[in-house]
Amino acid sequence: MIRATVWGENVHERTSKTVAEIYPKGMHACIAAALNEDEAIEASTATLQEPEHGLPQPRVDQTDVLLWWGHAAHGDVSDQVVDRVADAVWGGMGLIVLHSAHFSKIFKKLMGAPCNLTWREAGERERLWVTSPQHPIARGLPKCIELEHEEMYGEPFGVPEPLETVFVSWFQGGEVFRSGLTYRRGAGSIFYFRPGHEAYPTYYDENVRKVLVNAVKWAANPEKRNAHVHDAPNIDIKDAPESIEARGPKLHAEGEEGFR
Amino acid sequence: MIRATVWGENVHERTSKTVAEIYPKGMHACIAAALNEDEAIEASTATLQEPEHGLPQPRVDQTDVLLWWGHAAHGDVSDQVVDRVADAVWGGMGLIVLHSAHFSKIFKKLMGAPCNLTWREAGERERLWVTSPQHPIARGLPKCIELEHEEMYGEPFGVPEPLETVFVSWFQGGEVFRSGLTYRRGAGSIFYFRPGHEAYPTYYDENVRKVLVNAVKWAANPEKRNAHVHDAPNIDIKDAPESIEARGPKLHAEGEEGFR
Amino acid sequence: MIRATVWGENVHERTSKTVAEIYPKGMHACIAAALNEDEAIEASTATLQEPEHGLPQPRVDQTDVLLWWGHAAHGDVSDQVVDRVADAVWGGMGLIVLHSAHFSKIFKKLMGAPCNLTWREAGERERLWVTSPQHPIARGLPKCIELEHEEMYGEPFGVPEPLETVFVSWFQGGEVFRSGLTYRRGAGSIFYFRPGHEAYPTYYDENVRKVLVNAVKWAANPEKRNAHVHDAPNIDIKDAPESIEARGPKLHAEGEEGFR
Amino acid sequence: MIRATVWGENVHERTSKTVAEIYPKGMHACIAAALNEDEAIEASTATLQEPEHGLPQPRVDQTDVLLWWGHAAHGDVSDQVVDRVADAVWGGMGLIVLHSAHFSKIFKKLMGAPCNLTWREAGERERLWVTSPQHPIARGLPKCIELEHEEMYGEPFGVPEPLETVFVSWFQGGEVFRSGLTYRRGAGSIFYFRPGHEAYPTYYDENVRKVLVNAVKWAANPEKRNAHVHDAPNIDIKDAPESIEARGPKLHAEGEEGFR
Repeated sequence: MIRATVWGENVHERTSKTVAEIYPKGMHACIAAALNEDEAIEASTATLQEPEHGLPQPRVDQTDVLLWWGHAAHGDVSDQVVDRVADAVWGGMGLIVLHSAHFSKIFKKLMGAPCNLTWREAGERERLWVTSPQHPIARGLPKCIELEHEEMYGEPFGVPEPLETVFVSWFQGGEVFRSGLTYRRGAGSIFYFRPGHEAYPTYYDENVRKVLVNAVKWAANPEKRNAHVHDAPNIDIKDAPESIEARGPKLHAEGEEGFR
Repeated sequence: MIRATVWGENVHERTSKTVAEIYPKGMHACIAAALNEDEAIEASTATLQEPEHGLPQPRVDQTDVLLWWGHAAHGDVSDQVVDRVADAVWGGMGLIVLHSAHFSKIFKKLMGAPCNLTWREAGERERLWVTSPQHPIARGLPKCIELEHEEMYGEPFGVPEPLETVFVSWFQGGEVFRSGLTYRRGAGSIFYFRPGHEAYPTYYDENVRKVLVNAVKWAANPEKRNAHVHDAPNIDIKDAPESIEARGPKLHAEGEEGFR
Repeated sequence: MIRATVWGENVHERTSKTVAEIYPKGMHACIAAALNEDEAIEASTATLQEPEHGLPQPRVDQTDVLLWWGHAAHGDVSDQVVDRVADAVWGGMGLIVLHSAHFSKIFKKLMGAPCNLTWREAGERERLWVTSPQHPIARGLPKCIELEHEEMYGEPFGVPEPLETVFVSWFQGGEVFRSGLTYRRGAGSIFYFRPGHEAYPTYYDENVRKVLVNAVKWAANPEKRNAHVHDAPNIDIKDAPESIEARGPKLHAEGEEGFR
Repeated sequence: MIRATVWGENVHERTSKTVAEIYPKGMHACIAAALNEDEAIEASTATLQEPEHGLPQPRVDQTDVLLWWGHAAHGDVSDQVVDRVADAVWGGMGLIVLHSAHFSKIFKKLMGAPCNLTWREAGERERLWVTSPQHPIARGLPKCIELEHEEMYGEPFGVPEPLETVFVSWFQGGEVFRSGLTYRRGAGSIFYFRPGHEAYPTYYDENVRKVLVNAVKWAANPEKRNAHVHDAPNIDIKDAPESIEARGPKLHAEGEEGFR
């Protein structure tokens, strides 16, 4: 059983009538419900407003894949929680970054890049074309996913070259966007997935829900979480795989820790 | 003329007799001298101890390629300067990260990864094999660079998959390391180059100096620096490349800025 | 159950007393036995000497992952069988390329590169370091695999940049080699794994066997094989996702097939 | 001075009135003229109909960057010439593959993939968005290149993941395509560029011409061509970088060549 945690910012669901009508229990609840339709996944939710944003260390430790949706309150997420999540990803936790979370602290931290783009909120048509057919994330999908109303995101998308491009979007207004990108950071697999503007019912779309399920399965790492992601062990000379003797000058005293 | 700035931490040169004897004017000065042997490069230096670490905004603006050597004082580098350098890289400045700067704030920020490794200071023999012959950074080199005394760095190296692997190191004690890795972040080209422990005269080695010159030339971006690396422009509906009309609900009021 | 087929050239096992003593039933049989120790894999063998090299179309159709070991007789493999295997890989069959098969027709065809290297047969020590810990192919391995006697392969290895580098080898004689590389070609996952010189008992090593099992599991694609890997369908104007009308001059008559 | 050779199939220019009117001297001549507008490039042409398709060995030897346009006669190109071109690319010659040459023998050989796609000839609007701003190939371009009439190519494009994606296309009929992709094969840089259907005046477009000039400069390798791209040298035991002695059984007699 893959343990998925859906993190939702949960702001517009409470402040915008439009959003509340579409997602009365919050977007995170809708996404978690989509995941729980699959027997291999057990999804729960966490939100910004909970203590430690619902992500205290034990919760992160018990999460195989974290999904992250945020938009209006990126700056309210504490750096401590961001660092905790980053450590977990480096140690093997999967991370699915959704839509406007391109500007979340955690995504920018893991990408090492501005993650910016162009945008337009016009309710226009989007079509996500599968560019890597038979990629596990594209399993069971048609050749393209059509969404009648979505926000536009346009290139250039300020991210590093991905491991693989899974989707590229076409927009009615004339732009394109690389909408499904995979990355590896340490032992953690990361997937950015573009659609999901809160003003439209995108997370009720059957194909979008299929992508979320597929992505969670793809990102889940069955290996034990690496708890020492920052270790830089000194290999003692007598433990060198080949027998060697120390030569030349030395900076470090015997047994001294390295600088960081 | 490529304007290179060699940033040196300049700590061990002043506190360790060993290092001071090898690099009496500082490692940064030795590296800058190596670069200045090439007619196409104009190299100067900056150090931790100067105001703003020698990297005020105008200096960064006038740097085409920044070289970074640090070891004992990564934590003393101000976050403001790190952010300034990151912005410059995303905007097109080249960055060469040297040896123990794998743990520098700037490298970790740009990689989105822990950048850790194993290490041993035994003055052992290192041999850097060229894995991408005819890569611009390997220009004019023999099949491998042999260094009689170096610190060992061992895999796993906690960095993302590179764009290209240019060197892989063999160590006398039995380990290996991916010693020359290229990355692109925004418009900036980044090269990590492993050798250069301060207790050995590595930066006097002819082949190492050739790599530094090649890397500076490779990383220099002749395009105008992009000064707006974080912009996420809203494309007005009337400016859409294809004529469209707004449909469906809206979250943003007309002309409103996006959330960040 | 993953259906693995181990293809062996089966030449030196019959012509060299040295090899026959180590692998009395053939290297392919030893490798298949290693795979069959895992309950999720069902491995059988095929050899050069069988009709169609043991790889008629139905056999390929029923193979989830093909392992390929060849050395002395690359040129004896028929182009028809090579094309059949390539089509299967593009359609989703996994392929594990072993040791001297770096020069096999099928690997060179799928890489689009010479796949050359340097080599020395001295029975020297090899140490394969894991560079991507927690990669599925490295599951359950120690930090490095030590083989007391192996043939040396040295860089530069004439292959494209891989998707991910999983192992890098250290050799006693002073060289290094990227020994575990992953690729994707179409829907097929490809893994090159270096060790396995026929004059040494490498395929009896427990860690090497673990890699083979892991690699087969990693390369197996549960999706239905794509049987139309060369199709380039014409999308009729009336089937365009957006309503458009033909404009301007035309080269192709209505309903005409594309050129190839 | 970069020596560019524009190879044109030169079939439709002679058989189709439509094409002949747009490109009276042939598409290759139009492309060469675009390149010759830049002072750093000296471009000439070669066609299918010439002896050895205009690409005898000395001509290839004196070509820094080869541009390839073909459509109706891929099968008429001799395998010998294809092998010669592939060897040159591996040795350092740049290669720019244009439009329908996605199905050329040389591109399929270098990609190790089917290189297929979907298509529609409707004279529809194409917009190529720059996804890697400040990439040398995108130098001096606006945010997108708009072509009023082009053939549609749609995803999935059956090629390996590129080194970098430089352009992604939007089509009026609703599809998208990765239209500018870079690859490295051996010492050769390869760029695939989508537009250029012979029924439209694409190669007269100022921005398209700029891309061609930029791509030639990007692909030119100033290093001496490697003439031994298939070599796999045996390193004699006495020439090993570290002193070792032969141990264990041997397959190869002293000084024997390796198998291929």
